[in-house]
Amino acid sequence: MKAAVYLPADDKTQWWVEMLQSLLPGWEVTSMDHPGDPATVDFAVVWRPRTGDIARFENLKAIVSIGAGIDHVLADMELPAGVPIIRTVGSDLTQRMREYVALHVLRHHRDMPRQLRAQAEADWHAIVVPVAPNRTVGVMGLGNLGAASAQTLAGLGFATRGWSKSPKTLHGVTCFAGIDCLDQFLDGCEILVNLLPLTDETRGILSADLFARLPREACVINCARGPHLVDEDLLAALNDGQLKQATLDVFHQEPLPADHPFWNHPDITVTPHVASQIDAGTGGRIIAANLLEYARTGTCSDVADAARGY
Amino acid sequence: MKAAVYLPADDKTQWWVEMLQSLLPGWEVTSMDHPGDPATVDFAVVWRPRTGDIARFENLKAIVSIGAGIDHVLADMELPAGVPIIRTVGSDLTQRMREYVALHVLRHHRDMPRQLRAQAEADWHAIVVPVAPNRTVGVMGLGNLGAASAQTLAGLGFATRGWSKSPKTLHGVTCFAGIDCLDQFLDGCEILVNLLPLTDETRGILSADLFARLPREACVINCARGPHLVDEDLLAALNDGQLKQATLDVFHQEPLPADHPFWNHPDITVTPHVASQIDAGTGGRIIAANLLEYARTGTCSDVADAARGY
Repeated sequence: MKAAVYLPADDKTQWWVEMLQSLLPGWEVTSMDHPGDPATVDFAVVWRPRTGDIARFENLKAIVSIGAGIDHVLADMELPAGVPIIRTVGSDLTQRMREYVALHVLRHHRDMPRQLRAQAEADWHAIVVPVAPNRTVGVMGLGNLGAASAQTLAGLGFATRGWSKSPKTLHGVTCFAGIDCLDQFLDGCEILVNLLPLTDETRGILSADLFARLPREACVINCARGPHLVDEDLLAALNDGQLKQATLDVFHQEPLPADHPFWNHPDITVTPHVASQIDAGTGGRIIAANLLEYARTGTCSDVADAARGY
Repeated sequence: MKAAVYLPADDKTQWWVEMLQSLLPGWEVTSMDHPGDPATVDFAVVWRPRTGDIARFENLKAIVSIGAGIDHVLADMELPAGVPIIRTVGSDLTQRMREYVALHVLRHHRDMPRQLRAQAEADWHAIVVPVAPNRTVGVMGLGNLGAASAQTLAGLGFATRGWSKSPKTLHGVTCFAGIDCLDQFLDGCEILVNLLPLTDETRGILSADLFARLPREACVINCARGPHLVDEDLLAALNDGQLKQATLDVFHQEPLPADHPFWNHPDITVTPHVASQIDAGTGGRIIAANLLEYARTGTCSDVADAARGY
């Protein structure tokens, strides 16, 4: 079997090639820039592939996304139709995301941004907040990462809601499904976490229209994809007080340009797409296991639904 | 029955007098400054009582601490011997403390202080940290608040240790007991949370000697009592890099004086004794229930062990 690897940085590509080669004895692992005869490539292993790169491999069995999302693969306008896409999900990815969500929900819940501002002024100012059971938080998107995050928030004691396209049942979480229940989900939701997949339906969902349906002074955390958010709507909602604070891990353009207004907005916390990352060692083992399973059986449990987009 | 109330602020005292009176029909609730005949006072309900105030009540049945700790009562050098002290503990107090501990352990774990400094410079700088199961955190003190906090950290996925005077068993937490096991508890403990009661044995326990037994670049969170910490030892350990960061909620003097070096130290987060507070409504109901139980039965489950100091 032959696997060709592409990531946007040459040194990273080379590192992944060597690591996967060591985990796949008997396979040939190459970089996508030097794949030999393109017709011999069985699998493409990619992060943010360049348009048209994958289409060269006419006998491709499957594409592996080095990440849980497949939107960066689907963004290739010349992507060959019908080639299965395998997501990379693992316990580390879920663990890191629930840490991030717990941290930032708690930060907004206990109003650490204002507490730190009081410290900067040597101001002994106690900010009184409700206990978590009296604080309603909501998670949009209940896939692996969203479900684990929602249950973590429930475990911390928050009144926790979840919203997803299709109905879900999660212990300790009040679940809403479908666009018809979105208003009900948003009503009274003081801290909103976005973990939706990026699809045509969800692009721009974090908009003025949605913010207006949250209670006044709500907080928003986006740790899914940059294009879920309408940047100017967020700035307007913060500036007029409809939203109190936001934490953003993902952006339309990454790295976030140095002159972007998010960087120095007093009510926005920017993190550089670190909410959840695949640890290369762990990710490599998961990808190698998926490739071996797919080569042996013709499928694997992490195949995404390209029509749904996740 | 007659209860006399004292808190260091007159308006708070008056508020508590009225609230407890409304919950204790048939009782007489007064401020400690106007108790009528001191010999008629059955219960003193206090936060940081003035030295000698309680000794005036010769027929006192019990003292109620408006808080989980009793150190502020024992600090009264003229406290009458043998009068039971009733602690005020409740689910809100535990809930708030575990929120605070989870928040600040996660902040140090994900290195938010440095992440925020990168944001201030519009620097897209990803800080790579281990996943929580590869991060060892330790909680000193496994009373109500410490045990709940340790179990919350374990639930978040951290490799969690606990240390207490007497042996404890907590699901998901590796427990150490007694001074002989302190070294073992501290060895490799990257984030240390102090929730010990303040006693003669624990005063000044957060010292250069203890910090030196933690791994280099450890973080320390003190949410118990200010005198647990030797202030100058903390500053020295931060400045020479033995400790990386600290979060402090309690101080030798509160409010923390405006010229104290903790306020503007780049690696110290100061919060104004807000980790866990008794919500006055909830606290009032707990205290009223304890007073009624004590008046009826001559004891209640929240009586502290004054000899141990907690």
